[in-house]
Amino acid sequence: MTQGRRFVDETMEIDVTIKLKHGVADPEGENTKKALNLLGFKNVRSVKTMKTFRIGVEPEKENEEKVKQEVKEMCRKLLANPVIHDYAIKVVKNHKS
Amino acid sequence: MTQGRRFVDETMEIDVTIKLKHGVADPEGENTKKALNLLGFKNVRSVKTMKTFRIGVEPEKENEEKVKQEVKEMCRKLLANPVIHDYAIKVVKNHKS
Repeated sequence: MTQGRRFVDETMEIDVTIKLKHGVADPEGENTKKALNLLGFKNVRSVKTMKTFRIGVEPEKENEEKVKQEVKEMCRKLLANPVIHDYAIKVVKNHKS
Repeated sequence: MTQGRRFVDETMEIDVTIKLKHGVADPEGENTKKALNLLGFKNVRSVKTMKTFRIGVEPEKENEEKVKQEVKEMCRKLLANPVIHDYAIKVVKNHKS
């Protein structure tokens, strides 16, 4: 209510999608496909699973590219296993742009 | 090589994204946030997890709407728990359109 108080949520939201590399077995997807077929969905040919982390970042760095670079670092250090995973980074909310 | 042989892959691909409803605890996301903060990514404010199933469907029904309806049925019967999950359905590949 007072002057200077900010109600704007400036958090940037970034989606990191982690998927298995081509050729890596996906038993969860395989079993989901089997279950769907057994439930009567005979036209399901394949099911692949992916995981998404929606990361809310305080944009202390103005530059979207820099934030993306930081998220890439997060993938390397924690979120993805480079032996079996590919990842994709996508900005879904940015109040500055 | 012979006449009439088809090389076109007509499989439709549909992404089903399952996320937790607003207010439902996401311990995996919480712990990922903590781990990122501890790794030095201090500006991470929140992490939410989602799961995506990429479903390959043989499009015996011509209509994209009908396939979407069928995938909705899959969510109701197997993929999502209506008590805690919201889901979104998105066609990512359709050779007929």
